Amino acid sequence: MGLSEFDIISRFFARDPLRRTDVRLGIGDDCALLEVPSNRELAVSIDTLIEDVHFPASTSPSDLGHKSLAVGLSDLAAVGAQPAWATLSISLPTADEAWLEDFCKGFFGLAEQYNVQLVGGDTVRGPLVVTVQVHGLVPRGEALRRGGARPLDSVCVSGYLGDAATGLLVATEQLERVSPPVMLDRLNRPEPRVELGGLLRGLASSCIDISDGLIADLGHILEASQVSATLDLDRIPLSREMLDLIDAKVIDQHKALKLALTGGDDYELCFTLPNDKLKRAQAIAGAGNCRIIGRIGDNKVIKCTGGIKFTGADAEYFPEVPTGYDHFEGKGKDA
Amino acid sequence: MGLSEFDIISRFFARDPLRRTDVRLGIGDDCALLEVPSNRELAVSIDTLIEDVHFPASTSPSDLGHKSLAVGLSDLAAVGAQPAWATLSISLPTADEAWLEDFCKGFFGLAEQYNVQLVGGDTVRGPLVVTVQVHGLVPRGEALRRGGARPLDSVCVSGYLGDAATGLLVATEQLERVSPPVMLDRLNRPEPRVELGGLLRGLASSCIDISDGLIADLGHILEASQVSATLDLDRIPLSREMLDLIDAKVIDQHKALKLALTGGDDYELCFTLPNDKLKRAQAIAGAGNCRIIGRIGDNKVIKCTGGIKFTGADAEYFPEVPTGYDHFEGKGKDA
Repeated sequence: MGLSEFDIISRFFARDPLRRTDVRLGIGDDCALLEVPSNRELAVSIDTLIEDVHFPASTSPSDLGHKSLAVGLSDLAAVGAQPAWATLSISLPTADEAWLEDFCKGFFGLAEQYNVQLVGGDTVRGPLVVTVQVHGLVPRGEALRRGGARPLDSVCVSGYLGDAATGLLVATEQLERVSPPVMLDRLNRPEPRVELGGLLRGLASSCIDISDGLIADLGHILEASQVSATLDLDRIPLSREMLDLIDAKVIDQHKALKLALTGGDDYELCFTLPNDKLKRAQAIAGAGNCRIIGRIGDNKVIKCTGGIKFTGADAEYFPEVPTGYDHFEGKGKDA
Repeated sequence: MGLSEFDIISRFFARDPLRRTDVRLGIGDDCALLEVPSNRELAVSIDTLIEDVHFPASTSPSDLGHKSLAVGLSDLAAVGAQPAWATLSISLPTADEAWLEDFCKGFFGLAEQYNVQLVGGDTVRGPLVVTVQVHGLVPRGEALRRGGARPLDSVCVSGYLGDAATGLLVATEQLERVSPPVMLDRLNRPEPRVELGGLLRGLASSCIDISDGLIADLGHILEASQVSATLDLDRIPLSREMLDLIDAKVIDQHKALKLALTGGDDYELCFTLPNDKLKRAQAIAGAGNCRIIGRIGDNKVIKCTGGIKFTGADAEYFPEVPTGYDHFEGKGKDA
């Protein structure tokens, strides 16, 4: 490898243009030193993306850079935290300068958008593995959690579901490539719902980001909150582009719905709203194109695993929670 | 894989016995929520260990668990921070329960010793890669840094040098196995100098942990501080066990010294002390078995790369900074 570890760090990762005033010491010492305001809690999340497991080998370095940060920012959005800092550990087979340049374009492009400073990293030779830890700040005691859903709360989602899973079918050539490549963009360059997460503090009773699919992630809310839910399949939001694919018979209606329910990688927010907050929530629904898709059941349940019922025109096709649909089938899989 | 990601996380990593009161939310939600006292700065460091790059494949899971946390705690020690929390991202080829059990024994054993709570993680299938981020707390403005060494400061190290590199020679069968296996232990189960790092706050003018070898790491202090140094080779601390190997002619004197200077993986602290602090420092020297091994040059230098001179009986063998000696030659290498 032509470049030493320190060359790479200084040339590519230490040139983060952001200089937050709460970073006392950034990249280059044994530790970064960071200042957390006394009225804030620190929110942290770590995520690893492995080639052929979490992303197809055909993913561009820029898209990988974007996505590796986006999945962490989406976790911060889910608790309503404001993004602040990131650390990056990257393992690369070769120190390809063009690759690194492109990766940084995606990573720092998104970092700048959310005022996130890269404060530490580790660069090693090995299989292509990217680990990012994000750090955010949230007013003390106000973080959104999974366990707060209450009987009769409304179940809501932001944006559209199933596009990223459709993009994966395109990327893995299980579906013909269609124009415009919006589905691939939804897979490779998810936009974390950071603004929406912040606005939901004090409104939503629970929140989670949709990384594994609506059913799986809503299931985590239900389990943590010990409640059940009923979803109206007629209200599951499908994008204009998805509806076009259905019209063009590229994909059928039930497949589209299944992708929306179980596909994952959408990085939208799923949250619950108490009835007395619905009016206030209307004012912010536009921030994430939010809609109500169902309701929490009227009883607390002691132990809930997958307690989701469906209503709507297609409900007969989803008599119970579908499981076992993989949102990405690579050489490996999430352990 | 028999166990799902969530099974593994809940069964192995969520059972951390520690319950720190500053952890508002631990493993299991989208983010951990942590409380940083208003008079403290947050110190963070992320490190990745890859099989056959950073540790031999023969390393036991327990040793790997210990070491993956120890290298991060050593970074916290180098800035004088008190360890608080850790996150862990682990990629495994198979979810082997006995392996995980053993890994956790090493990881949590060390974590308990330093009151470090595991607050987040990611568990994926892939090549064996372990990434740990450590989080520590340090009084505002008091963190030790690399850039504070001043002309005529004393250069000090803790403990003994070269044992870990000797252990690597044993592990890779370049040196015969000797009893007791202290050298292997020094390689596989380093003890981070957390207590010493805390005691050095307000005393040391600069500090770094020795991960890449004394020469390389002291070099980082010199470069950041824009100074040079002279080391007395007669004062480089060799362990009783190393001296025994020299006496038994298993290893020769110059090889031992070269391992001590360039071998790496010792995770001792190298630091500089102003003359007016030497007396106060004597009181704490016992905490890390510290000794003075040299002195910072009497002039500031504008640009210093490797400005280390040697004195002592063996100085003729080290006329300049030796480079290119790899402390671990695996299939890959640090990028």
